[in-house]
Amino acid sequence: MASQELVKRLNQTIENIPDFPIDGIQFKDISTIFLDHQLYKDVIADFVQFSKGKIDAVCGIESRGYLFGVAIASALEVPFILIRKAGKLPPPVISESYDLEYGSAVIETREGQIEKGQRILIHDDLLATGGTTEAAAKLVEKQGAEVSQFSFLIGLKDLKGDEKLKKFNAEIYRTLEY
Amino acid sequence: MASQELVKRLNQTIENIPDFPIDGIQFKDISTIFLDHQLYKDVIADFVQFSKGKIDAVCGIESRGYLFGVAIASALEVPFILIRKAGKLPPPVISESYDLEYGSAVIETREGQIEKGQRILIHDDLLATGGTTEAAAKLVEKQGAEVSQFSFLIGLKDLKGDEKLKKFNAEIYRTLEY
Repeated sequence: MASQELVKRLNQTIENIPDFPIDGIQFKDISTIFLDHQLYKDVIADFVQFSKGKIDAVCGIESRGYLFGVAIASALEVPFILIRKAGKLPPPVISESYDLEYGSAVIETREGQIEKGQRILIHDDLLATGGTTEAAAKLVEKQGAEVSQFSFLIGLKDLKGDEKLKKFNAEIYRTLEY
Repeated sequence: MASQELVKRLNQTIENIPDFPIDGIQFKDISTIFLDHQLYKDVIADFVQFSKGKIDAVCGIESRGYLFGVAIASALEVPFILIRKAGKLPPPVISESYDLEYGSAVIETREGQIEKGQRILIHDDLLATGGTTEAAAKLVEKQGAEVSQFSFLIGLKDLKGDEKLKKFNAEIYRTLEY
């Protein structure tokens, strides 16, 4: 669990913007974290502590999931696998679709980058309703790997993303919870 | 300049995919680099050598520009500023538009994250025609900062992106050139 001091520094740094992207939603802007290289390093160290010795690879979800994800993998000396939006990775790819409020979306990994039996950390900046994360976990499982952990900088309790992730029996970590 | 050994390892790792995203284009898939944590670190060290002592902040272009950019900034202990596609950063933002083959696109930074007088490195994975990079440089200059350096993992000579960047009088680095 993140120290009270780290949580306090993050709360002083993250900016709350009312009514973005739509009325009634309060947006948490994490871009300010990357302006402070020491804070960035401390956040990574906290994620690393959660995952150390427990995973064989990190899957990061495009695009903000790359910002912490690649550093977690680098610190743990394990592969970092890009999960991208459809059409961005060249063939052959493995795909998984999920529902959005209006319509649906598809995420992909390149075939062969996830190996059978690997213990995978799925990382993203935000756990909201959990739709994208659930699709990412299905994408991992259909390649014969095990979803061992999820980590997020922020979890939004009211949106109950946890419930969508329960079935994977993986550890879930959020640095901050609102 | 990247060592011959680093260039060789990268060329053995990057995958060439014919006819992606459209017929006649050979796509260079860099996602394989992140599977090899040592190679990733060596690429970062090479970028760091180019920029050390010469910049005050790094601007990374969404989304693949984040993968190396955030690590370069972290190693140099300078701020990392996200350049995002329009509509993703909350207001207030500074915007710059640029032409695409069909239509146009807009990139943005949050207001206040780039400081007047800062020496900026603009980083992305690929220098192709230079359209996005040129827009990023204009975005930096209109905020009163100086574009001191550009760095890219790959530069595609035939597309003459360099010519669009000449006017900024900045150093340009490409780890690999094809």
